Amino acid sequence: MPSAAVIGELPTRWFNLLNHLPERLPEPRDPEGATPSRIEVMKRIRLKSMLAHDQATEPWIDIPGGVLERYQEIGRPTPLMRARLLERYLDTPARIFVKREDLLPTGSFKLNSSIAQAYYAAQEGVPALVSETGAGQWGHAVAYACRLYDIKNVIFWADVSAKQKKDRGTLIRMLGGVVYPSPSAETEVGRLLRERGTIGSLGTAIGEAIEFAASNSEFRYISGSNHPHVLLHQSVIGLETKRQLEAIGEVPDKLIACVGGGSNLGGFFGAFLPEKMRRGDELHMIAAEADTAPRLTKGEWRYDHADPIGVTPLTKSYTLGRDFPLPETHVGGLRQHNGSPAVGLLRKHGIIEACAYAEKDIFETGRLFLRLEGILAAPESCHALRAVIDHAIEARRCQRKEVIVCCMSGSGMLDLGGYAAFC
Amino acid sequence: MPSAAVIGELPTRWFNLLNHLPERLPEPRDPEGATPSRIEVMKRIRLKSMLAHDQATEPWIDIPGGVLERYQEIGRPTPLMRARLLERYLDTPARIFVKREDLLPTGSFKLNSSIAQAYYAAQEGVPALVSETGAGQWGHAVAYACRLYDIKNVIFWADVSAKQKKDRGTLIRMLGGVVYPSPSAETEVGRLLRERGTIGSLGTAIGEAIEFAASNSEFRYISGSNHPHVLLHQSVIGLETKRQLEAIGEVPDKLIACVGGGSNLGGFFGAFLPEKMRRGDELHMIAAEADTAPRLTKGEWRYDHADPIGVTPLTKSYTLGRDFPLPETHVGGLRQHNGSPAVGLLRKHGIIEACAYAEKDIFETGRLFLRLEGILAAPESCHALRAVIDHAIEARRCQRKEVIVCCMSGSGMLDLGGYAAFC
Repeated sequence: MPSAAVIGELPTRWFNLLNHLPERLPEPRDPEGATPSRIEVMKRIRLKSMLAHDQATEPWIDIPGGVLERYQEIGRPTPLMRARLLERYLDTPARIFVKREDLLPTGSFKLNSSIAQAYYAAQEGVPALVSETGAGQWGHAVAYACRLYDIKNVIFWADVSAKQKKDRGTLIRMLGGVVYPSPSAETEVGRLLRERGTIGSLGTAIGEAIEFAASNSEFRYISGSNHPHVLLHQSVIGLETKRQLEAIGEVPDKLIACVGGGSNLGGFFGAFLPEKMRRGDELHMIAAEADTAPRLTKGEWRYDHADPIGVTPLTKSYTLGRDFPLPETHVGGLRQHNGSPAVGLLRKHGIIEACAYAEKDIFETGRLFLRLEGILAAPESCHALRAVIDHAIEARRCQRKEVIVCCMSGSGMLDLGGYAAFC
Repeated sequence: MPSAAVIGELPTRWFNLLNHLPERLPEPRDPEGATPSRIEVMKRIRLKSMLAHDQATEPWIDIPGGVLERYQEIGRPTPLMRARLLERYLDTPARIFVKREDLLPTGSFKLNSSIAQAYYAAQEGVPALVSETGAGQWGHAVAYACRLYDIKNVIFWADVSAKQKKDRGTLIRMLGGVVYPSPSAETEVGRLLRERGTIGSLGTAIGEAIEFAASNSEFRYISGSNHPHVLLHQSVIGLETKRQLEAIGEVPDKLIACVGGGSNLGGFFGAFLPEKMRRGDELHMIAAEADTAPRLTKGEWRYDHADPIGVTPLTKSYTLGRDFPLPETHVGGLRQHNGSPAVGLLRKHGIIEACAYAEKDIFETGRLFLRLEGILAAPESCHALRAVIDHAIEARRCQRKEVIVCCMSGSGMLDLGGYAAFC
């Protein structure tokens, strides 16, 4: 008897979505009279190969053999699962498919890029990496990837989330990662933010990680979201899903992903962009965000810093403003005031649609999905599941046999504190 | 590029290992002058279909369509993964394969039987089930399976483990399960054990669950290990593994599993018993137990109760005695004074070999496996991994290209409290 999940083959090339954007990606800028130039600093502290990936014009980039081997080892391709019990519960004619990135060893899609970046760092002879993390999924993935290539690593982790997820901290430490809850006393930026009484966020951690790299010459700074190179690495999600759907003769009507920095969304939707151009309104791409950080639904399309102090270059995307008060929630992965310029551009041109959900509602969705499918989704991924449910109910109302495909970006097994507070 | 993991097809029949034991399974007995008869009580409180499975003489039993559908839905067949990074680290010529039961939705192999038992309970029109759990993996799996079939459920959970694993408790409650830490005040047995100052174990929970079923007529008692019917359901593990190895042309030299009640071991080894009879010493079957509950390595082959008070029938297996002091450890799944008669019989006849490991050592193994493969194993499964490592090192010493296959019975994502204490 065949398995219900579709597996298929591993892609050997990454897909470059930069060639498929409706207009040229707005270039980063320096703030007026910036000293030092934020752009020059970033060039100095980032990996050369990542700067190159950000500028790549090729439509496809070969995945190096060493990275492919690791992708195989961690369990790629991840299964595409049909969520029949959810369909039955909703009594919907829609067919619902879930891309199971939560099954990867660290419990999220983040490994797809951390492995690539650690691999290239090793190729460049870089001995140490520093990065930031929101919910901790990226930090966990960085710690494992760095362990694989024997690279020292430091992670600035939004304090709010670090406190909520002690078990994730245990894992990062067991893997050899060094964690500083942000804002920390380790950097000027951190000390300044602590004086202001700022509670941590992904943005505060970004600012600290950049300063740390700029003042510790053995370190390079890497990022787990937002940038074109991260969307490039994450394209394996969409490429696999596309092949898996083709293998079972399904044509997607709706693709759904949650959106924080934008890398699971960009990685998932990217490979479908040529099809979207061809099929227009026959294929919907839907971004689900947190209503406490509603960039795509309520933000402005303009230049802004990615951190509250302004140590990052200005990038153009949807922003709530770098002083926007992000309340303490259990959705650390979406808790950001701006996001990926590429994803923003897709939103601006109406290629992707956006919706926002309340924390209470997404935990209720997570509980429902657990009770039906037995699987606990990360709070971030629950946003995507919530949008799936809304669309499946709408499909029932219209008696439309549509195919809804969603990216389950991560597992909620390390988020049970959050669930306990809401369920 | 093909995936590194082997998937293959789902078996449609369970394998009955009772036909392949070296002698007839010793029948359960009542203690001298027992009133009521323990055996009669068990007949009254257990599911009719499970009593039938325990006595089955057919070599194979068809898996009902409803159970097969659920097996597909939860992600069976589970992947058989090659642990190349572990091989490389150990510099061993051995090829190491890991059967990934940890990838199932509740994070362990226990679903294979809980789904079957809840399915049959629903067929029999039973509205409520009660059971015991040690580490909580079975309780979690029962809560989910009962949710699938809308069956009320109560779980007596060894107090030691319930305290260690609050997050697992949150999951069970979210699924609708009712948990009583054992010994509890809910039963005579529990109250008696509390007076004696007994700390909880799987055995105390068994005694309470049986009393609860005997005195609440709407409930039936189910068990997640030890009994032939559980080994029958768990045979999917071995059947899948056998096919997966055949698909890649590998012939196993050593099969390794941890042993508590004996159901992941029995389920994994069972389908290989005919091959073992044929190949003799060319195929080794190795059971890894906790040195704090060393039944197969230090126990006596004799009749004993499975609970400390003596409410269970006497069964013949290796036992440490029902008063054996089981210290408080983080290895709740192996924390038992006796075990499965079928597994005991295999041990008695030298068909399986046994080894025992200290808690400190198995957590060290878990940390090593995490650092290499990125995967966190349940402390119970770490016993099997530890035996894998010992044999792979021995293979290096002898330069023997053997094939070692181990069952990863569960994930350690809900055991990070234990890891934090040791790593």
